[in-house]
Amino acid sequence: MTEWGAAPKLVEAPDPALGPGETLVRVAGCGLCRSDLTMPHLPAAVGERLGWSMPFTLGHEVAGWIDGTGEPVALVSPTSCGVCRYCVRGWDSGCPYGRAGRGYGRDGGLARYVLVSDRRALLPLGDLDPRHAGPLTDAGATAYHAVRRALPRIPAGGTVLVIGAGGLGAFAIQFVRVLTAARVVAVDPSPARLAYAAEIGAHDGVPEVSGRADVVLDFVGADETIAAGIAAVRTGGAYGLIGSAGGGLRGPWFSTLPRDGEVFTFQGSSIADAQEVIALAGAGLIRNQVEEFALTEVGEAYAKLAAGALTGRAVIVP
Amino acid sequence: MTEWGAAPKLVEAPDPALGPGETLVRVAGCGLCRSDLTMPHLPAAVGERLGWSMPFTLGHEVAGWIDGTGEPVALVSPTSCGVCRYCVRGWDSGCPYGRAGRGYGRDGGLARYVLVSDRRALLPLGDLDPRHAGPLTDAGATAYHAVRRALPRIPAGGTVLVIGAGGLGAFAIQFVRVLTAARVVAVDPSPARLAYAAEIGAHDGVPEVSGRADVVLDFVGADETIAAGIAAVRTGGAYGLIGSAGGGLRGPWFSTLPRDGEVFTFQGSSIADAQEVIALAGAGLIRNQVEEFALTEVGEAYAKLAAGALTGRAVIVP
Amino acid sequence: MTEWGAAPKLVEAPDPALGPGETLVRVAGCGLCRSDLTMPHLPAAVGERLGWSMPFTLGHEVAGWIDGTGEPVALVSPTSCGVCRYCVRGWDSGCPYGRAGRGYGRDGGLARYVLVSDRRALLPLGDLDPRHAGPLTDAGATAYHAVRRALPRIPAGGTVLVIGAGGLGAFAIQFVRVLTAARVVAVDPSPARLAYAAEIGAHDGVPEVSGRADVVLDFVGADETIAAGIAAVRTGGAYGLIGSAGGGLRGPWFSTLPRDGEVFTFQGSSIADAQEVIALAGAGLIRNQVEEFALTEVGEAYAKLAAGALTGRAVIVP
Amino acid sequence: MTEWGAAPKLVEAPDPALGPGETLVRVAGCGLCRSDLTMPHLPAAVGERLGWSMPFTLGHEVAGWIDGTGEPVALVSPTSCGVCRYCVRGWDSGCPYGRAGRGYGRDGGLARYVLVSDRRALLPLGDLDPRHAGPLTDAGATAYHAVRRALPRIPAGGTVLVIGAGGLGAFAIQFVRVLTAARVVAVDPSPARLAYAAEIGAHDGVPEVSGRADVVLDFVGADETIAAGIAAVRTGGAYGLIGSAGGGLRGPWFSTLPRDGEVFTFQGSSIADAQEVIALAGAGLIRNQVEEFALTEVGEAYAKLAAGALTGRAVIVP
Repeated sequence: MTEWGAAPKLVEAPDPALGPGETLVRVAGCGLCRSDLTMPHLPAAVGERLGWSMPFTLGHEVAGWIDGTGEPVALVSPTSCGVCRYCVRGWDSGCPYGRAGRGYGRDGGLARYVLVSDRRALLPLGDLDPRHAGPLTDAGATAYHAVRRALPRIPAGGTVLVIGAGGLGAFAIQFVRVLTAARVVAVDPSPARLAYAAEIGAHDGVPEVSGRADVVLDFVGADETIAAGIAAVRTGGAYGLIGSAGGGLRGPWFSTLPRDGEVFTFQGSSIADAQEVIALAGAGLIRNQVEEFALTEVGEAYAKLAAGALTGRAVIVP
Repeated sequence: MTEWGAAPKLVEAPDPALGPGETLVRVAGCGLCRSDLTMPHLPAAVGERLGWSMPFTLGHEVAGWIDGTGEPVALVSPTSCGVCRYCVRGWDSGCPYGRAGRGYGRDGGLARYVLVSDRRALLPLGDLDPRHAGPLTDAGATAYHAVRRALPRIPAGGTVLVIGAGGLGAFAIQFVRVLTAARVVAVDPSPARLAYAAEIGAHDGVPEVSGRADVVLDFVGADETIAAGIAAVRTGGAYGLIGSAGGGLRGPWFSTLPRDGEVFTFQGSSIADAQEVIALAGAGLIRNQVEEFALTEVGEAYAKLAAGALTGRAVIVP
Repeated sequence: MTEWGAAPKLVEAPDPALGPGETLVRVAGCGLCRSDLTMPHLPAAVGERLGWSMPFTLGHEVAGWIDGTGEPVALVSPTSCGVCRYCVRGWDSGCPYGRAGRGYGRDGGLARYVLVSDRRALLPLGDLDPRHAGPLTDAGATAYHAVRRALPRIPAGGTVLVIGAGGLGAFAIQFVRVLTAARVVAVDPSPARLAYAAEIGAHDGVPEVSGRADVVLDFVGADETIAAGIAAVRTGGAYGLIGSAGGGLRGPWFSTLPRDGEVFTFQGSSIADAQEVIALAGAGLIRNQVEEFALTEVGEAYAKLAAGALTGRAVIVP
Repeated sequence: MTEWGAAPKLVEAPDPALGPGETLVRVAGCGLCRSDLTMPHLPAAVGERLGWSMPFTLGHEVAGWIDGTGEPVALVSPTSCGVCRYCVRGWDSGCPYGRAGRGYGRDGGLARYVLVSDRRALLPLGDLDPRHAGPLTDAGATAYHAVRRALPRIPAGGTVLVIGAGGLGAFAIQFVRVLTAARVVAVDPSPARLAYAAEIGAHDGVPEVSGRADVVLDFVGADETIAAGIAAVRTGGAYGLIGSAGGGLRGPWFSTLPRDGEVFTFQGSSIADAQEVIALAGAGLIRNQVEEFALTEVGEAYAKLAAGALTGRAVIVP
């Protein structure tokens, strides 16, 4: 991102200079995220209010090798202060100081090197391939956060609907399979996505919401999915809104929202989420489907992302 | 209630006949509830779908003495089956078989005697006065259910907003005071209610929502209170909708609902809620303000309730 | 059981007579339990203090068909009152009124028919075979209760040790596999049991405790397993004692018990536990290995149980 | 502490030199703790294994003013890394890297100045007096951690036994009063302590354990208090061991430990605990009784502490 309101450009930039207490990480791979596509449309005034610096390098799903030791690490995707009342309780996804970060207002991972100033952000990868691990920290960890929030409301023998079987939804399907004994139903209009959902463990797939469920996780978030998702939740169940399509719910809440259940929404994920996703991936329990692109192909990769033409998460391998 | 769609009448009815496994309770007092006022407007078709029998006696906030032993008891207000997956988990407020019950589709407590067929419904009162204990089981227990749901989200040093300082809200204010170390702010346009709220422990009182809070309990539930209440919740907090004014929320949910917090709503309360409210009242920790009326004054009492002219819960003492 | 202190006998007894509110169940199968073996040794004074009636029929792992409708059901194994503060909270395993019950002080399932007076005890089996379902309600539900208690302390990528891979332990191994993403290590001196543990999902098997774990479930409960199990628990983890071998822990507790974790023990299980175990079995997620015996072979079956010579749960099929 | 195995001495030492990222705090007050009394008896080998540096200044209950700004702060008492799996989950009391810290193996607060290298350790005090706030971070926060652990097991109308009404116990009594509606019984052989317990809110005081309770918090931890405390816990309740008297429990665990309840023990407290204790003190909800001593009177203060002759926490005001 070289200026407010303009499309990103691939430019040569100097490698970052290491300051005291910082760690230099050689990028192995960096995932592309839908939120990247919105950044060129951000008004300068908003960006400045969020504390963003222009220019900055995109890319917030980063993994690589610690410069010097070569240790493979993924980088925690959201930024947090480590000190506030949220951070010291392990709710760093609620930290109010995370509005600018690596890849959104600061230099991110679509580069050869990236600087890390917070030791909490370094997540050892063990045997996992750092070229592909980046999406675990954002798409993976965000989906994990949703599933973790919903776990107490998923009984053995219960049902979970996952609306939207794309990047985050595909992770969520797998987490529900691995962490519960519930039946998982994927909801997606795309037959290809439903086929993939079945491959990674969904018991059933439907083009639109039908039936009742203990938990509905909505990775779309449009008016229609909210209305249908809310209506599907059983007494005592949960509806989680993760998709940012901007929908709402018409009509009265009383007698409509899940009776004695809960509605929740959030952004991002915690460091603990990312640690656990990496543990699950390291144990071979989840599949992280990626499509590799070279740094010079980043424009093409973003185009495929925008067109919904990817079959997994796009990862740029510098 | 003598016929669908008609105002209730005070009539002579035979005392109920005791069947096997049933308990006869001589009514000491029966509270009046706003929901009683809506029953004459219920279409016959709806009432029949709910399984209601016409005629029936109103009154679901009942306490009295067990016939024979004279033991003082309050009666659990909602009906539940005791057998379903909700009941055996202690979530009997979610029981799907509770749509008809004592005072709503079955004979209730505005009478000299009432029949109890479920031993779970008998709550020993110890030294509490059964003439006044009825409202503990409905107004009290419902408010308690709300506070109990919100407890994990109320930190020491936090703030709770209680919107609507009437019957249920006045209970909620006291429960928050007794069960947490939070600051309680009552929100009510009525100066008299705010004065009462202060008397029973609210730290502050305001005519409309202002400031932020960890938890907002909305005993009104209109468009305005929902919008203002939701906006007031801090990251990780909760908004509980108890008031049935029928409001909703315009606009997008994402970025509007409490971030990583929860929104919940429910009807009724569990047996355990009622037990704990009675324990709190028995320990002298909460005040249950009532206004006594004779059975012959029930019309006047309902009129004052409808006009908002009561200073406490109306209780009919036969 | 025909008299205190004597071995049980196979005798002819009249079929039970149905009272009001009761259900007659034709027994399809009844599991044998180690606790049956201790009952002949119970002093009369203790039995009477527990409220047991002599004579009574043994057998508390019962499933069959409702007489008349033929609906297959399993029977909740522990007895509970349904009314006390534990029962109405769904903690019926803590009910103080459950010291006598079907098969322990009352007529149990080693018979053609058994009476059920509490509707909560009837668990619909759907497509499950009632000849084999009895052990799900006791061995299965007790193991499930242990796993459910420990779930919040089992992180993704964590480790669970199951000490004793016999009847209950084999269920626990499967529940941990199905409900978590943890690594499960079975601990048992018997190579045959370790082989079976591996077959049903244990990642590893060792003859005695080694390594650290987030959760240790001890289905033996001897001095040695308690000492080794406690020592193995990580900070924040849990040690659950289910085995009744009567062991204890020598030495100081401070700095020895799991730091900021928990130690728990219990008897029995709740109705909800049994419901969920049946749901898991119905979904084909757990295997319930049984060995069938005729009612006339019950002596032989008990002898094999006492000798540890069974490869699954013994089930008597009348 | 000038050498291993020797009594501490009051010596002149240079003020600490500020390094990068560090904060200098001028000490306003530093509490004395029983654990200080044990440090002279620590063998050099053990101290070195814990990573302690000799010499070091005692004192881990520190509050003061940030040098330069004058902002009053208390310092988090335990040390933690901020990065491990415990720290990023808000369980920093379980951090394995906290075995050496300010006042135990590193320079502590019995001095004019103290260095803080971790910004998480600085807790703003608002209007609280920093001369007296030190004990909130250790005695207060440790007692708070115990109460917080036990909260889910304390029903409205329940009972909590606090064994040992000294420094930590006096905090615990107040936290239970402020955060629950339970009845609090103080257990202490000293009539003076029981009188103080009554003053700060205990409903009753007894010289030794009697009666049953939902939760027992044992701030002594001797054989006798463990046996009596465990026996007093109701089904589903909790026994928390905080006192380090080194006791244990003879006899079998099964049927002796709290049925379906929990036993827990821990050391220290989390940053969140200290924050909440300060919030409670700031709101005037708890009393923190201290006895002031000058730095030159530190020997006398330790002598009174050792003799049990203090009526509150001793605080050294340099």
